[in-house]
Amino acid sequence: MKFVLAPDSFKESMNAKRAAHAMEKGIKNVFPKAECVIAPMADGGEGTVESLVSISNGEMVSVEVVGPLGKRVTAVYGIINDGNSAVIEMASASGIELIKPEERNPLRTTTYGTGQLIKDALDKGVSNFLIGIGGSATNDGGVGMLQALGVSFKDENGDELLYGGGELHRLHSIDVNGLDERLKTTQIDVACDVTNPLTGENGASAIFGSQKGATPEIVKVLDENLVHYSKVIKEQLGKDITNIAGAGAAGGLGAGLLAFLSANLQKGIELVIEYTRLEDLIKDADFVFTGEGSIDGQTLFGKTPYGVANIARKHSVPVVAFAGRIGSGVEGLYDNGFTAIIGILKEVSSLDEALKNGEDNLAFAAQNICRLIKLQKH
Amino acid sequence: MKFVLAPDSFKESMNAKRAAHAMEKGIKNVFPKAECVIAPMADGGEGTVESLVSISNGEMVSVEVVGPLGKRVTAVYGIINDGNSAVIEMASASGIELIKPEERNPLRTTTYGTGQLIKDALDKGVSNFLIGIGGSATNDGGVGMLQALGVSFKDENGDELLYGGGELHRLHSIDVNGLDERLKTTQIDVACDVTNPLTGENGASAIFGSQKGATPEIVKVLDENLVHYSKVIKEQLGKDITNIAGAGAAGGLGAGLLAFLSANLQKGIELVIEYTRLEDLIKDADFVFTGEGSIDGQTLFGKTPYGVANIARKHSVPVVAFAGRIGSGVEGLYDNGFTAIIGILKEVSSLDEALKNGEDNLAFAAQNICRLIKLQKH
Repeated sequence: MKFVLAPDSFKESMNAKRAAHAMEKGIKNVFPKAECVIAPMADGGEGTVESLVSISNGEMVSVEVVGPLGKRVTAVYGIINDGNSAVIEMASASGIELIKPEERNPLRTTTYGTGQLIKDALDKGVSNFLIGIGGSATNDGGVGMLQALGVSFKDENGDELLYGGGELHRLHSIDVNGLDERLKTTQIDVACDVTNPLTGENGASAIFGSQKGATPEIVKVLDENLVHYSKVIKEQLGKDITNIAGAGAAGGLGAGLLAFLSANLQKGIELVIEYTRLEDLIKDADFVFTGEGSIDGQTLFGKTPYGVANIARKHSVPVVAFAGRIGSGVEGLYDNGFTAIIGILKEVSSLDEALKNGEDNLAFAAQNICRLIKLQKH
Repeated sequence: MKFVLAPDSFKESMNAKRAAHAMEKGIKNVFPKAECVIAPMADGGEGTVESLVSISNGEMVSVEVVGPLGKRVTAVYGIINDGNSAVIEMASASGIELIKPEERNPLRTTTYGTGQLIKDALDKGVSNFLIGIGGSATNDGGVGMLQALGVSFKDENGDELLYGGGELHRLHSIDVNGLDERLKTTQIDVACDVTNPLTGENGASAIFGSQKGATPEIVKVLDENLVHYSKVIKEQLGKDITNIAGAGAAGGLGAGLLAFLSANLQKGIELVIEYTRLEDLIKDADFVFTGEGSIDGQTLFGKTPYGVANIARKHSVPVVAFAGRIGSGVEGLYDNGFTAIIGILKEVSSLDEALKNGEDNLAFAAQNICRLIKLQKH
C-alpha cells in the first residue's frame, strides 16, 4: 500500500510536515509496511518554504536583508529541486509580522529585502522562482524589490526614490538598464490567490492598506501614488498593468513583478503542486491523505486540499481529507475528488486544548480510517 | 447492503432512536438503497424502555403509582415482544429525578411504585421482565416494591412497616404468603451493572446514600437497617443475600429482587441484546454502526457499544462506533470487535453547541464513513 500524505498546515497546531508525520503514525499503526510519502503542502502562504524544502530535501538559506522599515532582518528562503529552484516567501523579508503594530506604516515600508532574497538566489544559480507574496507590510508597488535588483526609480531631480509607498508620487523616470541580467532567463512564478487590481476601490491600498497600518487618509495617498506609478510605467515601459488581476497583491508587488519581471501569477497550490512534482508521487498511490486546520466551502476556491484532490482525481486515487474544523458548504468537495472529510476532534474542549492535541487527534483519526480501509484491502 | 444501526443515546444530545435515524440519514446519502435496521440500544439505564419499545414496535404504558415520597406520580413502562415482556425502569416510579434535591431523603423513600408497575404488567399478561434499576431515590431494600406485590413486613407489634429505609430496623416478621402468585412463573431479569453488596463499606448505603440525600449519620443508620433486614431474611426465608454482588444496587432493591423474586441479575447491555434479539438482526448485516455520547476505556466494561460489538464480532460483521467524546484507553476496543472509532465533532465549540448539533454531526460522520466503505464495495 502506498499513501501520499499531503496536508497543508493545521494553523497554530502543527505545520504541514508534522501533520504528515502524524498521519503516518496513524497509518503505520494499522499498516506497518505501508509506504508513506511525506509530502507537506502549502498554498503559497505561510509555511510554503518550509513545506517545499521538506518535500524536496532542499536547503534553507538565511540572508541578512533590509527589513520592511529599513532595519536589518534575517530572512530565509529555500533552494529546492537540485538547486534549480528557489522558494521565497516575501513575508520573510518584508512581512507585516516583522513590525510591531504601532510601527506599521505603508508610506514607509519597502520590499527591498525581497529583492535581495531574489538576488541571493540568483547568485546561487537558481533559474526558477516560486514567490509567495502573502503577509506583506508594504504598499510600494514592488519598487523596493526592483531597486534591489538594479532598476532605478528617480524623481524629477534625478534623485533615487527612498523606501515606501509614500515616495511614489515623486516618481519621474524609470531606468531598467541596471536590472540584473540573469532575470532575463529566469522563470518567476508568483503564488497569488487574490485578484485585486493595482488601484481603485478594489485595489491594493483600499483593500489591504488598513491592515498594514494605513488610516483612511493614508489609504487615499497610497492609492493616488500607485495610480501615478502605473501611469509612469505605462508611459515609459509601455505596459498597462492597471487592470490586471493580482496586480494589487502584496501592496502592488504583483504589479512590479508583472511589469518588470514578466512574472507568471498563478494560484499558490497549483504552483506548489508543480514545484513539488506531486502528481508523480500520487499517480501510483493507493490513497492520498490531505487536510488543513479548517475545511469548508472556501476550500473549493483553490485551497491546498482542493488542489491535492484535483490531482488525485486525475489518477482515480481516493482522497481522505482531515480537518480540525469542518465548516459549512463542503458538499461540493465530493464532486472534486474528495472521498471523505473527517473531523479529528476527540472531544469538546477549548481551542487551546484542541490545537495542543492536534497531532494526537490526527494520528488517531488516520488510524481509524485505515482500520476501515484495511477491512476491505485484506 | 445491510446496516444495523444500534447506538445508545448520546446523552443530552439525542436519544438512541434519533441517533440511529441520524446514522441512517448519512448512510442513505451514499447508499440510497441500503437496508437500514433502526435498532436503538440501551444499557439498562435511562432510555432503556424507550429504545426497546422502539426496536420491537412495543407499547408504552402509563400508570399512576406511588412516587418515592408517597405522592402520586405517573410512571411509564413498556410492553414488548408481542405482549410477552415488560421493560421497566424503576426510576420512572421511584427515581431520584422525581424529587427536588432538598426533599431527597432515603430514610423516607420507597420502591412501592416500582412494585405497582410490575403488578400492572402482570395484569396485562406479561411473563418476562427486564427491569432497569438505575437512578433510584431509595434505600429500602426493595421492601416497598415487595409490599406492592403482596409481601408483608411487620414490626413486633404486627404493624406493617411504613415507607422508607428508615423503617427497616423495626422489621420483625416477613410474610410472603400474599406474594402475587403469578410471579412464580415469571422470569425477572434485572439490568445491573454494579457489583456492590447490600451492606458494609461498599454497600448500598455507603456508596450511593449520599447522592440520594443521606448525611454521613443517615448513611450509618441506613446501613444498620439493611444489616438488620438481611438478618431477618436469612432467619425467616433461609436466604443469605449479604454478600451477593449487585444486592446493593438501587438501595438494596437488588437484594429484594434476588431474595423474594429469584431475579436474574445481569449486565444491562446483555439483557437488552437478548430482549431485542439483536443477534438475529446483526448476523447477516454488512456493517453495524453503534455509538454513544462518550466512548473511552470504560466502554470495555459492559457499555452498549461494547455489547453490540461483541455480538457483531461473533458473526464477523465490522463495527463502526461513533462518539461525541473519545476518551483515553480506547485501544482495547479494537480487540473486541470495534473496527473503527469515529469522533463526530466538526469544530471547536461550547458543549451546548456540540450537543445541539449532535444529529447533524453524526449524520455527516456516518455519510463520510460510508463514502469510504463505498470505495471498496463498488
